[in-house]
Amino acid sequence: MTVNHLSTIQKAIEELSQEKSYKSVCHPHFKDHKMPSIEALEEIVNLSRKIIFPGYFGNSSVRPDSVKYYIGVNTERLYELLVDQVFAGLCFMCDKPQGFDLKERKDVAHDYAAQFISKLPDIRRILTTDVEAAFLGDPAAKSKGEVIFCYPAVRAITNYRVANALLTIGVPLIPRMISEMAHSETGIDIHPRATIGEFFSIDHGTGVVIGATSIIGDNVKLFQGVTLGAKSFPLDENGNPIKGIPRHPIIEDNVVIYAQATILGRITIGANSVIGGNVWVTNSVASNSKIVQFKPRDLLFAEGGGI
Amino acid sequence: MTVNHLSTIQKAIEELSQEKSYKSVCHPHFKDHKMPSIEALEEIVNLSRKIIFPGYFGNSSVRPDSVKYYIGVNTERLYELLVDQVFAGLCFMCDKPQGFDLKERKDVAHDYAAQFISKLPDIRRILTTDVEAAFLGDPAAKSKGEVIFCYPAVRAITNYRVANALLTIGVPLIPRMISEMAHSETGIDIHPRATIGEFFSIDHGTGVVIGATSIIGDNVKLFQGVTLGAKSFPLDENGNPIKGIPRHPIIEDNVVIYAQATILGRITIGANSVIGGNVWVTNSVASNSKIVQFKPRDLLFAEGGGI
Amino acid sequence: MTVNHLSTIQKAIEELSQEKSYKSVCHPHFKDHKMPSIEALEEIVNLSRKIIFPGYFGNSSVRPDSVKYYIGVNTERLYELLVDQVFAGLCFMCDKPQGFDLKERKDVAHDYAAQFISKLPDIRRILTTDVEAAFLGDPAAKSKGEVIFCYPAVRAITNYRVANALLTIGVPLIPRMISEMAHSETGIDIHPRATIGEFFSIDHGTGVVIGATSIIGDNVKLFQGVTLGAKSFPLDENGNPIKGIPRHPIIEDNVVIYAQATILGRITIGANSVIGGNVWVTNSVASNSKIVQFKPRDLLFAEGGGI
Amino acid sequence: MTVNHLSTIQKAIEELSQEKSYKSVCHPHFKDHKMPSIEALEEIVNLSRKIIFPGYFGNSSVRPDSVKYYIGVNTERLYELLVDQVFAGLCFMCDKPQGFDLKERKDVAHDYAAQFISKLPDIRRILTTDVEAAFLGDPAAKSKGEVIFCYPAVRAITNYRVANALLTIGVPLIPRMISEMAHSETGIDIHPRATIGEFFSIDHGTGVVIGATSIIGDNVKLFQGVTLGAKSFPLDENGNPIKGIPRHPIIEDNVVIYAQATILGRITIGANSVIGGNVWVTNSVASNSKIVQFKPRDLLFAEGGGI
Amino acid sequence: MTVNHLSTIQKAIEELSQEKSYKSVCHPHFKDHKMPSIEALEEIVNLSRKIIFPGYFGNSSVRPDSVKYYIGVNTERLYELLVDQVFAGLCFMCDKPQGFDLKERKDVAHDYAAQFISKLPDIRRILTTDVEAAFLGDPAAKSKGEVIFCYPAVRAITNYRVANALLTIGVPLIPRMISEMAHSETGIDIHPRATIGEFFSIDHGTGVVIGATSIIGDNVKLFQGVTLGAKSFPLDENGNPIKGIPRHPIIEDNVVIYAQATILGRITIGANSVIGGNVWVTNSVASNSKIVQFKPRDLLFAEGGGI
Amino acid sequence: MTVNHLSTIQKAIEELSQEKSYKSVCHPHFKDHKMPSIEALEEIVNLSRKIIFPGYFGNSSVRPDSVKYYIGVNTERLYELLVDQVFAGLCFMCDKPQGFDLKERKDVAHDYAAQFISKLPDIRRILTTDVEAAFLGDPAAKSKGEVIFCYPAVRAITNYRVANALLTIGVPLIPRMISEMAHSETGIDIHPRATIGEFFSIDHGTGVVIGATSIIGDNVKLFQGVTLGAKSFPLDENGNPIKGIPRHPIIEDNVVIYAQATILGRITIGANSVIGGNVWVTNSVASNSKIVQFKPRDLLFAEGGGI
Repeated sequence: MTVNHLSTIQKAIEELSQEKSYKSVCHPHFKDHKMPSIEALEEIVNLSRKIIFPGYFGNSSVRPDSVKYYIGVNTERLYELLVDQVFAGLCFMCDKPQGFDLKERKDVAHDYAAQFISKLPDIRRILTTDVEAAFLGDPAAKSKGEVIFCYPAVRAITNYRVANALLTIGVPLIPRMISEMAHSETGIDIHPRATIGEFFSIDHGTGVVIGATSIIGDNVKLFQGVTLGAKSFPLDENGNPIKGIPRHPIIEDNVVIYAQATILGRITIGANSVIGGNVWVTNSVASNSKIVQFKPRDLLFAEGGGI
Repeated sequence: MTVNHLSTIQKAIEELSQEKSYKSVCHPHFKDHKMPSIEALEEIVNLSRKIIFPGYFGNSSVRPDSVKYYIGVNTERLYELLVDQVFAGLCFMCDKPQGFDLKERKDVAHDYAAQFISKLPDIRRILTTDVEAAFLGDPAAKSKGEVIFCYPAVRAITNYRVANALLTIGVPLIPRMISEMAHSETGIDIHPRATIGEFFSIDHGTGVVIGATSIIGDNVKLFQGVTLGAKSFPLDENGNPIKGIPRHPIIEDNVVIYAQATILGRITIGANSVIGGNVWVTNSVASNSKIVQFKPRDLLFAEGGGI
Repeated sequence: MTVNHLSTIQKAIEELSQEKSYKSVCHPHFKDHKMPSIEALEEIVNLSRKIIFPGYFGNSSVRPDSVKYYIGVNTERLYELLVDQVFAGLCFMCDKPQGFDLKERKDVAHDYAAQFISKLPDIRRILTTDVEAAFLGDPAAKSKGEVIFCYPAVRAITNYRVANALLTIGVPLIPRMISEMAHSETGIDIHPRATIGEFFSIDHGTGVVIGATSIIGDNVKLFQGVTLGAKSFPLDENGNPIKGIPRHPIIEDNVVIYAQATILGRITIGANSVIGGNVWVTNSVASNSKIVQFKPRDLLFAEGGGI
Repeated sequence: MTVNHLSTIQKAIEELSQEKSYKSVCHPHFKDHKMPSIEALEEIVNLSRKIIFPGYFGNSSVRPDSVKYYIGVNTERLYELLVDQVFAGLCFMCDKPQGFDLKERKDVAHDYAAQFISKLPDIRRILTTDVEAAFLGDPAAKSKGEVIFCYPAVRAITNYRVANALLTIGVPLIPRMISEMAHSETGIDIHPRATIGEFFSIDHGTGVVIGATSIIGDNVKLFQGVTLGAKSFPLDENGNPIKGIPRHPIIEDNVVIYAQATILGRITIGANSVIGGNVWVTNSVASNSKIVQFKPRDLLFAEGGGI
Repeated sequence: MTVNHLSTIQKAIEELSQEKSYKSVCHPHFKDHKMPSIEALEEIVNLSRKIIFPGYFGNSSVRPDSVKYYIGVNTERLYELLVDQVFAGLCFMCDKPQGFDLKERKDVAHDYAAQFISKLPDIRRILTTDVEAAFLGDPAAKSKGEVIFCYPAVRAITNYRVANALLTIGVPLIPRMISEMAHSETGIDIHPRATIGEFFSIDHGTGVVIGATSIIGDNVKLFQGVTLGAKSFPLDENGNPIKGIPRHPIIEDNVVIYAQATILGRITIGANSVIGGNVWVTNSVASNSKIVQFKPRDLLFAEGGGI
Repeated sequence: MTVNHLSTIQKAIEELSQEKSYKSVCHPHFKDHKMPSIEALEEIVNLSRKIIFPGYFGNSSVRPDSVKYYIGVNTERLYELLVDQVFAGLCFMCDKPQGFDLKERKDVAHDYAAQFISKLPDIRRILTTDVEAAFLGDPAAKSKGEVIFCYPAVRAITNYRVANALLTIGVPLIPRMISEMAHSETGIDIHPRATIGEFFSIDHGTGVVIGATSIIGDNVKLFQGVTLGAKSFPLDENGNPIKGIPRHPIIEDNVVIYAQATILGRITIGANSVIGGNVWVTNSVASNSKIVQFKPRDLLFAEGGGI
């Protein structure tokens, strides 16, 4: 560093360290608070997958005499990690150091983690239906094993079902982080607050968005790029969006929605309907409907190019 | 853990360890079987890239007197890793321990790996055309070097060409895993069974889906969000999808398909056609066509917003 | 390896090592040149985020008496890493060893890195507006903290603002690599050369593409899958695309563009307009317009299915 | 695994899991207890070294305007890690879950960690004298920098001075672990309870042992293999060794002890003495003494070898 | 690299690649042979320690209801790793590819690994006595937990007992590697072929050497630097040492040997004897003896130093 | 942190950041200087071992047709790493930023690194003799392969021969660091400046010290704990030790020195001599001598123990 560079850098450090510069985008930490850890959450999701789908992740061999060792160890480790991360989530949402009782929060964290563990058998049961749906719905799938081991949608739906269980219990922040992890890996963005029935499948999946107040029935199939989104939303007197109002679609049983379709607002897509790709739907659709895009125009082709 | 939490967890472990709970979603391992390893597959793809594009990945300096050392070492390492992963793929697909002859499978794995190595020169040759197409097709590209080093589509197409070669040889599972790795990194989902000609390019690429039975000619360009997918497919008498039926589009030479277009079913997009963005195409298109979406509607704008 | 496999592999190595095979896809290294490092760039982006958003990334506790230590250390580390990576970027773009003066390039690298550091306070200021816009625009957001910590769009916009600052200074290659890192993590592809105003937000984001010559005003909101792209572009006499011509849209202040809309070419979307999802727009749109897709067709539903 | 191997392994697991088998060599963990972490302790020692010897460890450049950033950040990080490890040390020594008050222990940990931080300036001061002694005492040393950066004895003495400070404050277990880390790296085993004056040096060092109740004056130099040990020690009525009785030597100022000398028991080596190598000393030695081994015997040499 | 450096390096590579240069110091690998892995052996030793001393290594909490999960999982993992490493050890010792039957070697490896597992309960039993001896013999030890968790001698003896069990079963190479790992960490070098009784302890330990044919009774204690070594050994007609002849000492029950004592040759140190430090013993010693070094000489002290 | 802890820590940071506190133990960095890296040096030593002993370290299979690839790649990588570390060593020893010419130092570094590469064939040749000596001298050794792969002394001697070659070329600091790495791993401390002949072996090795001006002939064998050290050394008028004076022993051909012997000062141990263990030798010894410790005393044994 020359003297010039040095003073440039010193000046930047001074500016960046002024409270008025960082005040509105900084996060205070308090004594004994912990930040949530992406690495720990990845291990939590991996452990959940190992418990739910024995023999696929990790090198355990599944024999009736030994499966319990693995499930026991993984479940205890999952519990332990969850306690820490739930605690970190509670810390993150806590604005004031004095509003924080270390022991009480720890107890809440133990409680939430144990509740989550108790839901694992049910999570496995419903994911079994999702795997079944993915296998039956894809002629390219060779076995259920391949679906569980390789399909990004199974990974995204697993993260969703785990995140949704945590959110239902009351865990803050962590569910959102778990669904964003799947979003980053698979391009599938399912809000953990969404409600999704059994035998749910997503094909390919990149670009799928399922909003927080969506309600999806059983046996629904989405293709890549499908949005279940909100239109506009009302603001309160301060111009802030009002939270918690139902604003995403209801998709009834046995609906198929093809690639890139955008379904917006608190509308209902009736049971057994098929929504074609690339459509923009902002009104409810009756049961058994079949909706497709208006026929594209065929232009004359001009040599040399483009459109 | 309190006594309460303890018994909650014990109960969950008991349930999760019952055979009837995990039976349909577990994977048995047998003696000396190995699971495929994502880390090894990543190294396989990286070695392939180092061999194909000397000097870009890794720190080797490319001089005529030394390039062979690097290619020699990387090729031998690639061979060795492939043998293990092909073997693991064969194990994964093997349902019964008694149906498994260790030595025979190892021999098959050596054989397949050697076949793949012998295809590398041709994979380099065709990837060279893809790089050329990407460079010529992007006014923002400064050099072919930048295209090779930075463009996600080149990465995705490389994975596809590697995976396709492995699948053609007969390797199970591994090709799918290699294409899913690219899918996760780039949002581009090319089934390794697809057939794709030379000078192939994808721009931006997130959300592109190319189905298993697609056939793509030479000099085709796709933009982000393009789907070459299947519509519905026939079921067999048990309600399972019939495998292996051609169900994805044929894209002839020199076609350009713009962003978010969805092309579905075993239809043909004739040579030299241009497909505009956001269209939904389920019928064949003649050569030299130009297809665009029906003109959007212009609504009156209501103050206060949304749509 | 059997003798047969051995000779197969030897043959492949011979072929792959011939200059005529690798010539057009290899990258020469010269003495003391370094390749850019993805790991270093990831640390650069992480340090930038730590400096801009104190307390969110890393374990530092933000107290007025200590914040300067962290910003000081992180800024010095950032400077040091940037010098190396800018230098590597300059090397990458250098075709001939004799055209390379080690000391001069090092001096340029120090200079560029110091310039970047001096821009950090302004980058923080504008990112503060982006965070504000994301928080106000999403009824599911619980706090600005959650937005900064979890939202992929904030991550992608941060990478863009960092990359754009580097590109404006004159740094080659590195900005592109930084934006591709965000592209891979979030599915959001913003070219570092694009011009983007304050209070910019992207919701969900997967599949968004913003081209190199796009100009975006203040307070613009994009949803997932939106493309601001080019149509065709003129070629020079050698058939190469002419570089640097404006070819992407201008989006004026206060525009909202819904999911999967494709806006192509050097057109203008007038201020305060709303563009509905899944539309394909290739002509300019007046201010205060509201554009939506032509109403989809409602087909009769045939039992047994698909479309 | 064959059936035979399987039952062998099952049998071993059964046996190993029986309480009577593991009871006397197991460590119970209680809720929210943590085990001490070698990795964290290594970071603690490294941070201490970075703070004490600025510019040697890590990449910080030492300028008067920036040194405080590094010392600030490293000291805060050190404090944070120490709190956790001191807490873990307290947990390790706690036999009963009910005897454990989470908050109280955390407060003690904060307290001890802060006390340690306050001693760092003095630890640096005394280590400066040790570095001086090592440099002056070794004709092969080129600079004090080389001594600080490379000499294992400086590393071992640093660990000792850190461990001794922690032990003096009252921290359990952790000091012992820190001195064992140095023991493993350098072969120098200094009990953290030993008392050692200024300008202390050890040359080469492998095999040096300094017992818990040793007292060493200023300006003492030890060579490799020197033991300051205990002879026998009295047992209590249960046959257990009585703890805390002085049983190691007192070494007065300016003593030099050569390689492999063994000094045992609560004896005194008077000031300015020189102890030759390979001697066994169990009686006190007056000041200014010079003690060497009895002259070795010269045997006739028998052809065919050995001794 | 300049042209000069280049040709220097090329020349060195040529020379180093000539068979006559590397022939006598190279190791051939054959198809499907694996080299032993230090990392795997470290995991093997760590797993053994976790199984033997529950609750100390790793984060498992030891409750009667859960301990079996951990022991089950760790034992199965240990078995799996051992199979691979035993196999690698067999490969290493195999000179000719044709002398190698893949399946047969794998079966032997499974067999040896299972035998080792069956010995674990007995290894735990005897290590329990060693821990007891270390605790009783060290007035500085606060608890058996500290002994197990921190004492390098316990680590070295554990490695020895594991390595000895493997060697007794017939595993080649691997036992030696496991004892060298402890040697490097602790400075204690126990040959896995040595025979050592119960209640064995080593204090401090750096520099202890116990040769391959040593026989050590119960309740023996060694201090640092003690050698149980060989004197000379007979050569065969080719001048090579004759292997397998007893050449190290027999140490009977209840012997204590102080620091740096060197005991050489097939002699016997009778029960209940005490050997003082720094002695050189090459003749047998009767039971109940007490041997110390000849009294050192007291030299006049010459001003100006040294000896 | 409570307010109290906070101010304690602040106070310590203030003190530690004052120039007068850190001045004598800090290391200045200058622009573009790099610190030597232990990780890089470990890789340098590992590469050297891979080149010298093909097939033992790393997974390369040694066939005449492929060995050159590995040696080529490893040698180029070694060269590259050495350039950086030699450069860092030059930086470390440079006191003033203005005394530093970036390009000139880089050229020196290239030069030294190339010189080292040219010495590798000779280093291999002499290490081959050392391996031979270790194998012949140890009845427990099963094969030369085991000696190369497992024996710590071979590792230490390899580091010595590498470090000695670098030091002879003129490289500062780095040779010392390389020999300290072996010291830490093996307890064997050989100064890189020592002169050591062929067929050199060390048995067990912990605690061996060979000083900087030692001269060792051919076919010498040392056991653990042997010191070839200095007695006292003359000081200059400032009280600093005079550097570079011969002060360590000369050991002539075919000498054996048993465990824990201490040989001090510029004396000569004549050819073919045998030095018994635990002796302290400060006078020259004629050729063909046999020196052993004075016979130990046999004390009466007092019940109740100890000595």
